[in-house]
Amino acid sequence: MGLQLERLPRTLYVEREGGAPRAVMIDQRALPGELAWIRTDDWRVVVDAVKTLAVRGAPAIGVAGAAAVMLAAWTLAGECESPALFAARLRQTAREIARARPTAVNLAWAVERASEAASRALEAGKTPWECAEALYGLTEALIAEDEAANRAIGAAGASLLRELARRKGAPLNILTHCNAGSLATAFYGTALGVVYAAAEEGLVGRVYADETRPVGQGTRLTVWELARAGVPATLICDNMAASLMAVGKVDAVVVGADRIAANGDTANKIGTLGVAVLAAHFGVPFYVAAPVSTVDTACATGAAIPIEERDAAEVCSEPIEGVEVFNPAFDVTPAALVTAIITERGSASPERLASVLS
Amino acid sequence: MGLQLERLPRTLYVEREGGAPRAVMIDQRALPGELAWIRTDDWRVVVDAVKTLAVRGAPAIGVAGAAAVMLAAWTLAGECESPALFAARLRQTAREIARARPTAVNLAWAVERASEAASRALEAGKTPWECAEALYGLTEALIAEDEAANRAIGAAGASLLRELARRKGAPLNILTHCNAGSLATAFYGTALGVVYAAAEEGLVGRVYADETRPVGQGTRLTVWELARAGVPATLICDNMAASLMAVGKVDAVVVGADRIAANGDTANKIGTLGVAVLAAHFGVPFYVAAPVSTVDTACATGAAIPIEERDAAEVCSEPIEGVEVFNPAFDVTPAALVTAIITERGSASPERLASVLS
Repeated sequence: MGLQLERLPRTLYVEREGGAPRAVMIDQRALPGELAWIRTDDWRVVVDAVKTLAVRGAPAIGVAGAAAVMLAAWTLAGECESPALFAARLRQTAREIARARPTAVNLAWAVERASEAASRALEAGKTPWECAEALYGLTEALIAEDEAANRAIGAAGASLLRELARRKGAPLNILTHCNAGSLATAFYGTALGVVYAAAEEGLVGRVYADETRPVGQGTRLTVWELARAGVPATLICDNMAASLMAVGKVDAVVVGADRIAANGDTANKIGTLGVAVLAAHFGVPFYVAAPVSTVDTACATGAAIPIEERDAAEVCSEPIEGVEVFNPAFDVTPAALVTAIITERGSASPERLASVLS
Repeated sequence: MGLQLERLPRTLYVEREGGAPRAVMIDQRALPGELAWIRTDDWRVVVDAVKTLAVRGAPAIGVAGAAAVMLAAWTLAGECESPALFAARLRQTAREIARARPTAVNLAWAVERASEAASRALEAGKTPWECAEALYGLTEALIAEDEAANRAIGAAGASLLRELARRKGAPLNILTHCNAGSLATAFYGTALGVVYAAAEEGLVGRVYADETRPVGQGTRLTVWELARAGVPATLICDNMAASLMAVGKVDAVVVGADRIAANGDTANKIGTLGVAVLAAHFGVPFYVAAPVSTVDTACATGAAIPIEERDAAEVCSEPIEGVEVFNPAFDVTPAALVTAIITERGSASPERLASVLS
């Protein structure tokens, strides 16, 4: 059975039938049991979807952020006659949208792009309605950009894997953590984009997916998406990766990123650091796949990246008396443990990251 | 609040009120919600308890194995008039009991001790009833031995931790994986025995407990037992240990063992290898606490230790179409990653393991 990418639904898009536009998103909380959709013209519903992880994944929440600003602009255009009032309220709303989750820089980045586009339109003398219209176009462009970036990341990653497979003389077994798949983006995925591009060339034997506690993105999303796309997939608990690596069953690790500091330190889903340490110990290449919008040059190192802590109930639904719970949603993998960062502009070792940015 | 070991129930014991003896075990499947007990005079119920993880933990399933042989002897003594038939059927039953789980050597070890005691009694001309009586005494002795060994392990471990705490100038934060606590033994525990002995001296600031997927021994058992005993405990997902170590929040790792090869390679609950690699990477001492009965000199290295694979449903209750699941219950940590093995005869680095055995 070959790769069947046509079986993967688009994760997030915008549509309009005559009137006000709507954002349409897969409600990922219902997966893998049900493919359910959220359709809304209310920016607050989008923010809530981001906060509750109905939509998650750094690139996807970036696009969702832009869509939320766009929906807010349509609502505010109807409420504010004065462009100045519209601008002020849109700025305030954009700040609230950007705060929905703190770690992935793509959200702040996309909201900033939308806000700047709105400012430019208003400064050029456009009305609030025209501004909202421009934001609809921007959201569509960001969605198309995201898919194009992911396909370019896939191509760049596939050339790294091609070389590994040539040396092995056989298709590769790839381990991934969390879901940096099509579901984490508008379409196609970053880490799984690399898998899909490599699978097109017959370079992928099997993908091992960490279940990724506490939220279970591996169990609920990654293996669902891989199976749907026709990629052989094996689900493991997070604590089983060492076992596989110890017996040579993992040829490469490919993960996504929520924010990459200027020096290549990488914040990604909790557990990524542990996988990176294992990969270094067992001599397995460790790749981070992400669009350049994930790089935050304002953070010199990973120490400057804010780490979201989430509710204890995610770890343990019934509180246990006298027991604390620690639930950071992300960790930071130091650049020294990263073999290469794969972007839409090509791959580079962390110390040469600046070369792909310029 | 000081240590309150008196709040910990005994995990497994034998009792008799007039007639046939019974084995009494905590049904650990009901924890942490309910402290339920299994009381039985049927060896098959004990084997079933071992297979279904109602009783688990290498030392506890050892004691359970001896108790099962003892209960079988009582039943067979009533069924077999001829000592030869009794001996043959007891041998056959003992083999079945020893096969209940493959990895922990303590089960085979304890069943072997019971079988040998039965053979000696019969060779000395005892009746089947007298033989069954002798096995009751042996089971009581093994239970007492187990607790005494654990208390000695605790004392040996506490002296290692005393030195670490002196250097730190503060109580230690200890990470443990799975449950090698009182619940994994007749009473007191191996890894948590070390914690309890160290806590008596004020050496323990906090214990971080890995939840230990897929069965959740950390969530269900370790933090329950620590909270009950009054030891500050924080539950984390397995993939969060790296995060804690990266910021210096873990001063030592203490785990148990299911089987230790002659060279010090250690089979323990799946995930232990990953924690050991992390500990080495972050410069955290990694201790294995186990009675000498866990050492299997018939295994030269860890490669000879059989690793039990368990049902996929433990990882993923609903099968996902087209997705495989890998569920090994144990992994093997190479001796090179173990700082010291703590036994009831003292501690030693893996290469000096033979010195504590002789």
